[in-house]
Amino acid sequence: MLPREKVFRDPVHNYIHVQHQVILDLINTPEMQRLRRIHQLGVSNMVFQGAEHTRFTHSLGVYEVARQICDNFQRNYPTQNGGADGLWNDDERLVALCAALLHDIGHGAYSHTFEHIFGTDHEEITRRILTDPSTEVNKVLRGVSPDFPAKVASVIDHSYPNPQVVQMISSQIDADRMDYLLRDAYNTGTNYGLFDLTRILRVMRPYAGGIAFEPSGMHAVEDYIVSRFQMYQQIYFHPVSRSMEVILTKLLERAKELFEAGDFDERFNPRLLAPFFNKNFTLHDYLMLDDGVLNTYFHYWLDYPDPTLSDLAARFLDRRPFKSATFTTSSANLLPAMADLVAAAGFDRRYYTATDSNFDLPYDQYDPTSATPKTQIEIMQLDDTLEELSTLSPLVGAITGKVTGDERFYFPKQMLAKPGTPGYTATIAQFQRYLLNGEVIDPQLLQ
Amino acid sequence: MLPREKVFRDPVHNYIHVQHQVILDLINTPEMQRLRRIHQLGVSNMVFQGAEHTRFTHSLGVYEVARQICDNFQRNYPTQNGGADGLWNDDERLVALCAALLHDIGHGAYSHTFEHIFGTDHEEITRRILTDPSTEVNKVLRGVSPDFPAKVASVIDHSYPNPQVVQMISSQIDADRMDYLLRDAYNTGTNYGLFDLTRILRVMRPYAGGIAFEPSGMHAVEDYIVSRFQMYQQIYFHPVSRSMEVILTKLLERAKELFEAGDFDERFNPRLLAPFFNKNFTLHDYLMLDDGVLNTYFHYWLDYPDPTLSDLAARFLDRRPFKSATFTTSSANLLPAMADLVAAAGFDRRYYTATDSNFDLPYDQYDPTSATPKTQIEIMQLDDTLEELSTLSPLVGAITGKVTGDERFYFPKQMLAKPGTPGYTATIAQFQRYLLNGEVIDPQLLQ
Amino acid sequence: MLPREKVFRDPVHNYIHVQHQVILDLINTPEMQRLRRIHQLGVSNMVFQGAEHTRFTHSLGVYEVARQICDNFQRNYPTQNGGADGLWNDDERLVALCAALLHDIGHGAYSHTFEHIFGTDHEEITRRILTDPSTEVNKVLRGVSPDFPAKVASVIDHSYPNPQVVQMISSQIDADRMDYLLRDAYNTGTNYGLFDLTRILRVMRPYAGGIAFEPSGMHAVEDYIVSRFQMYQQIYFHPVSRSMEVILTKLLERAKELFEAGDFDERFNPRLLAPFFNKNFTLHDYLMLDDGVLNTYFHYWLDYPDPTLSDLAARFLDRRPFKSATFTTSSANLLPAMADLVAAAGFDRRYYTATDSNFDLPYDQYDPTSATPKTQIEIMQLDDTLEELSTLSPLVGAITGKVTGDERFYFPKQMLAKPGTPGYTATIAQFQRYLLNGEVIDPQLLQ
Amino acid sequence: MLPREKVFRDPVHNYIHVQHQVILDLINTPEMQRLRRIHQLGVSNMVFQGAEHTRFTHSLGVYEVARQICDNFQRNYPTQNGGADGLWNDDERLVALCAALLHDIGHGAYSHTFEHIFGTDHEEITRRILTDPSTEVNKVLRGVSPDFPAKVASVIDHSYPNPQVVQMISSQIDADRMDYLLRDAYNTGTNYGLFDLTRILRVMRPYAGGIAFEPSGMHAVEDYIVSRFQMYQQIYFHPVSRSMEVILTKLLERAKELFEAGDFDERFNPRLLAPFFNKNFTLHDYLMLDDGVLNTYFHYWLDYPDPTLSDLAARFLDRRPFKSATFTTSSANLLPAMADLVAAAGFDRRYYTATDSNFDLPYDQYDPTSATPKTQIEIMQLDDTLEELSTLSPLVGAITGKVTGDERFYFPKQMLAKPGTPGYTATIAQFQRYLLNGEVIDPQLLQ
Repeated sequence: MLPREKVFRDPVHNYIHVQHQVILDLINTPEMQRLRRIHQLGVSNMVFQGAEHTRFTHSLGVYEVARQICDNFQRNYPTQNGGADGLWNDDERLVALCAALLHDIGHGAYSHTFEHIFGTDHEEITRRILTDPSTEVNKVLRGVSPDFPAKVASVIDHSYPNPQVVQMISSQIDADRMDYLLRDAYNTGTNYGLFDLTRILRVMRPYAGGIAFEPSGMHAVEDYIVSRFQMYQQIYFHPVSRSMEVILTKLLERAKELFEAGDFDERFNPRLLAPFFNKNFTLHDYLMLDDGVLNTYFHYWLDYPDPTLSDLAARFLDRRPFKSATFTTSSANLLPAMADLVAAAGFDRRYYTATDSNFDLPYDQYDPTSATPKTQIEIMQLDDTLEELSTLSPLVGAITGKVTGDERFYFPKQMLAKPGTPGYTATIAQFQRYLLNGEVIDPQLLQ
Repeated sequence: MLPREKVFRDPVHNYIHVQHQVILDLINTPEMQRLRRIHQLGVSNMVFQGAEHTRFTHSLGVYEVARQICDNFQRNYPTQNGGADGLWNDDERLVALCAALLHDIGHGAYSHTFEHIFGTDHEEITRRILTDPSTEVNKVLRGVSPDFPAKVASVIDHSYPNPQVVQMISSQIDADRMDYLLRDAYNTGTNYGLFDLTRILRVMRPYAGGIAFEPSGMHAVEDYIVSRFQMYQQIYFHPVSRSMEVILTKLLERAKELFEAGDFDERFNPRLLAPFFNKNFTLHDYLMLDDGVLNTYFHYWLDYPDPTLSDLAARFLDRRPFKSATFTTSSANLLPAMADLVAAAGFDRRYYTATDSNFDLPYDQYDPTSATPKTQIEIMQLDDTLEELSTLSPLVGAITGKVTGDERFYFPKQMLAKPGTPGYTATIAQFQRYLLNGEVIDPQLLQ
Repeated sequence: MLPREKVFRDPVHNYIHVQHQVILDLINTPEMQRLRRIHQLGVSNMVFQGAEHTRFTHSLGVYEVARQICDNFQRNYPTQNGGADGLWNDDERLVALCAALLHDIGHGAYSHTFEHIFGTDHEEITRRILTDPSTEVNKVLRGVSPDFPAKVASVIDHSYPNPQVVQMISSQIDADRMDYLLRDAYNTGTNYGLFDLTRILRVMRPYAGGIAFEPSGMHAVEDYIVSRFQMYQQIYFHPVSRSMEVILTKLLERAKELFEAGDFDERFNPRLLAPFFNKNFTLHDYLMLDDGVLNTYFHYWLDYPDPTLSDLAARFLDRRPFKSATFTTSSANLLPAMADLVAAAGFDRRYYTATDSNFDLPYDQYDPTSATPKTQIEIMQLDDTLEELSTLSPLVGAITGKVTGDERFYFPKQMLAKPGTPGYTATIAQFQRYLLNGEVIDPQLLQ
Repeated sequence: MLPREKVFRDPVHNYIHVQHQVILDLINTPEMQRLRRIHQLGVSNMVFQGAEHTRFTHSLGVYEVARQICDNFQRNYPTQNGGADGLWNDDERLVALCAALLHDIGHGAYSHTFEHIFGTDHEEITRRILTDPSTEVNKVLRGVSPDFPAKVASVIDHSYPNPQVVQMISSQIDADRMDYLLRDAYNTGTNYGLFDLTRILRVMRPYAGGIAFEPSGMHAVEDYIVSRFQMYQQIYFHPVSRSMEVILTKLLERAKELFEAGDFDERFNPRLLAPFFNKNFTLHDYLMLDDGVLNTYFHYWLDYPDPTLSDLAARFLDRRPFKSATFTTSSANLLPAMADLVAAAGFDRRYYTATDSNFDLPYDQYDPTSATPKTQIEIMQLDDTLEELSTLSPLVGAITGKVTGDERFYFPKQMLAKPGTPGYTATIAQFQRYLLNGEVIDPQLLQ
């Protein structure tokens, strides 16, 4: 413990309270500081301009929420017998706090897109940052005890034996989600993500099976689930953010293709990215990357001789998204014809058309037959029996187990040139016959 | 005018309302989009972690404040005779809005530090971005009229003839300051910067000499001045932010020195920075830079053979600030002896000691003999006579014309090693005798 | 129009903007000022202590929301032909604003409870306040035109011919509801009632059939419906507020019974209430009442010789609610036996037991066969076709047409005395066998 | 201690946490519940319409701030020797919390005005409510120990020996002021009163002489002082609120005069006020009064035969304030002539003219020669020496020891009738020659 707690000012939680030297030392590692250079929401700031916050502030926020949960548990539900009574054992506090702080440490620049192109795995990298003796994070954790790095890693990968600790960090209502909903709402300036954190923390309670909620807090939990649902629909799945991700994907794919073709122009060599193109990167290489490093190479490529690469780099840096329309299983067969028309208009269909689907399961009951069974949210009745949330809340019941989202077809904005304007051609006109009210439709059905 | 206004969601103003095609086109230029990659507060996020916002969101905010001022002026004080009556001529709206949006367009990465090292001048660059035919910004402005780029530039450099437009963008209470105080307060999570923007906008009014304020709004203006004063003392002058700037300065100085010595290791060549080291850069070169580009080269230099360069790069990226103590005119003579001790402890004194002063003049009356005379804030009485703010407000009177701030001496944290710890030596002990309660003192006075 | 708009500071809308002399004059009538003395949420401040706001601030808030709707309609959808095109005719502004401001003018002290006991009807009284020549409100409205009072009244009773005006004031998403949700949330300090008013106002649009919403605002409307649902469940139906209403009802019933028995002790005569006990009241009598007047008589009755009356008065003034348990159709048959036990414990069952049911229909589609058909919420597609909200939103679909709420049985707190405490008797023990987890149950089922 | 803490939802502090049965019992006394019926800001809601909050919510807020101070003191500065070390002795917690909760219990309806007319003294009454065995409050306090009521009373009257407890409740930066500034700002919807409560609580620390502040919190304390100054200037001294108080004063004076003349019309007898007119009231009588009771009698008097009484009652209930102008020592001699003109215009000068002065001393150093010496705010340096706040802060220095406010002359609005309107007469014209820009001036000086 620190002789006197240290605080970090934070717009969401007002202050982040640090009470252990270990936590302070972890925050000061290069691996944690690197998260200051990685946006929490990737390219969402291209749509919600305030979304400029990083994984660093989020990580401290998750730590703070976990700390408050521990405080509440210790004040109100302390174990009398080392946890055998199903109550909270405060010896678990440090491992829980470290896991909360470090849960995102393996995320890379433009995380999901990067993984998709280069085959990296942020969960695997998180484990390595925690357990590889070369990192500062590992060094700090080792200082607690030799097996402490592995313990923290096991909380993050859900194999830690105490379900209270695991669920605090990772479940359908965990410190991670609670922080990002509030923080993303604050920074985007929307209020969909607001819910009553104080009340939820008050009604959380440990039990032998993990974490449950008191009946008086049922509506606050319901409100959290609904908020999360709305944030996905409104912010995280916004079609223009996804469009910028599509462009980023195409840009990296094109660079990789050129690189793998073996004649990448040395003047534009992305020195820090090269190990990834070469499929031969170390943990150190990975930790050298951040959003700014990738953007730097995109600047290089503005002048690259390949017109596709340079154009896609400019579209990304200058924010010129593709347009899109939704499609369904029954209209998906129309996409090849539409892509043909995009090609006929002069675009390389491999890089100037794309599909993207985004679906979320806002909440689900536990299903042992599922590939990824969820820890359902339990309301603990006065007589200690548990009732699953969706059986009590008609609102939550309405969205339980139902994936929500859409599939979109992306194409250049030029395809929407209006009649009477210079870019409008017969090909363009033909293309537009496949669109109605933002959806892909079969033109023949309208005739 | 756009057929239907377009809005951008913003956490500070809720929505930014865009009503002109010209404004929309300006926002979409690469020069404006580049501001998304430059932090508004430089390295302040190293202290106030939420301060991750950029000059892009600020620029849109300044635009929005100016737009609201124009709306109020046009609704309540429209001229009847082209402005000869001292009232608002709405023909000035577009030039005012463009100047508001573009006023920061010339800022570079880590703006003030960069200028200091490389001799760039963001005001001069702003002018060039507006008036050089090579930029997209110029192209959009030219579309209004051939002389429009120069008109917008003249608002920004204060030479535009209409003082209402000039003061709206640049005065002691302008759209720029009002946005940044609110935005910095929002993102840092402090409330020092809060004031009643709505009320101030309501009580602003045009007159022949520029912009004045109605008597009923005197206290709201007073509150704004006090807020600004407090933000400077609390946020902008924070000693740890300044420490990170000191490190950045030393880092760039060291790189420049190595570069100019002519044997910069080619493997670590900062391609996009090279024109600046070579003192031969174009506007295009300047526009290729942003915070992430500089950080990328700092990553390169982590492995550079020069230990000073690599250490300073690591200190900057990993946030390891120098410590500091305040000094005064009378204690400044002690600094050489202290620097000697830093050198004796093994640090290169050129790169591991520094002084830094930060002073602000929170508000001043107009003084024609000043090098930079201020436009004073005028309260317009019922009978149209003007009274200067500080004559009415004792709070403002207390800080009018008084610069506030401090001077600090920076040195490595190792110099503060505590007795009994490994790093504590006789040299260190000697050094610490120069410090008391965070101030530099003469050890002889204490004996 | 006023030469310069006048503003009222408001914590919810920041400022209320008044631009017409008629509106200012209406605000200054005694009938409007009286609303300052009537709580918006009746006795809810007994549970949510911040809920101390009145119908006056709410009324100004509804006016302000309506004003903003008119501004948006006039800016974006002005009619070109007097409304025949289904767009907004700004000649309707004043009647809409007056109706918004005055819609609650007929509410009395402790409104719903009072009506229930004394057979008053606030809608009928609203009509009279608007149209009776004796009121100041009528005088101000008459000043516009002789038929203006009746026009405003017809907006409030839904018979006004323009459905845009009617729906603005009264529909499932109207200015009234939008203000009270935000205001009640602000004052109670809960965030269930928050939704994005600015966005909803932006996406509202007039059409021939009334008011519809643009597709881009669908989620904001959804969020509003969910917020409203949650406010009902959490705030408006709180069992302790309802308990205080039960006590108020019983208190007024007892006073009425004593009064009607003809021997009401003259020393405790409720002078301003007497006309209502005598079933012979004038509009002037009604306008003399407010929450404080009723409370004054409750103070008188603290010393009344009838122990039931004095006890109920003390319970109300000193906030000593009854306790309650939920019951259902199948357990309702147990209530007589429970009331017998309350009587056996020494309480007059007529005044110390009660049932109360609270149900709300959060949203419904239009149903011409309903007794009170609802104006459903329509989303207007790009091709001007309408789609009803619940067909687009799974969240809204989940609660459409479903009433939600509960029925409760109320009884004195003494019936819950714990075993081993002085008040615990065999009768009390017997009573408690009917309760489990806050519900009424059949004790025989547990044996 | 309660087995589990109980919370009250509060918009300012989010939750009020109650952890002692004694506190819960005190909240449930009739004397505390009565505060729900007394507005915190008297008639200020006539100007800032949201200011509808009561002394009840404020009292719970002061309790909550004090509770948080105790928590911080106990966590960070617990005494090791019963307080002899100058640190916090948590045995003082309960007496401090009770004093915080009860500090305003003696306030009456329209507190200051009522005291002025009827010679009551809320501090004396507070003491009686605490120590008189007839009250419920006394009964609860006696339950702690026989001398506990007197101990709590001694904290409130500053005679309690522990200065930490006294200063927590009553000093220039105490729990009372911190709650009311935040609460009044929240309810009026202004942000002048906002300051960083969390930070101030963090930097408060006990010492032998009372409570001091750490140097790192100097600016937060400065901000609090400035906020308080601004709230007085903007909210508490608003000329229209004071006008409504003037009318209330005149109304009660007239009623008293009629009553004392001995022929008060029995039909309009203010039963609960009569003991005060008769100068023969008991504590029980006092506790029967609240804002609503007084308003009820004002309703009665609307029909009273005396035209002055009925007119003043209507002005108060219907919010028809007098107008005012500031005057100074040098212009005070003009007021009799102005009052003559008001009389000449047909108004009884005793009831239709008035002067009112409002001055505040925002902050002062300790001055042993003062009639009411202030406990100055001390900043405790690293070496435990104390520095008084105004020596460190130029902002605070500017307002230290200086009273601020104004004196106003009040008169009927009719005196401002404009030329050309029906009410404009030679007398009115003559009167208006004494006014310029809201100030009383000597007409001869303008000739």
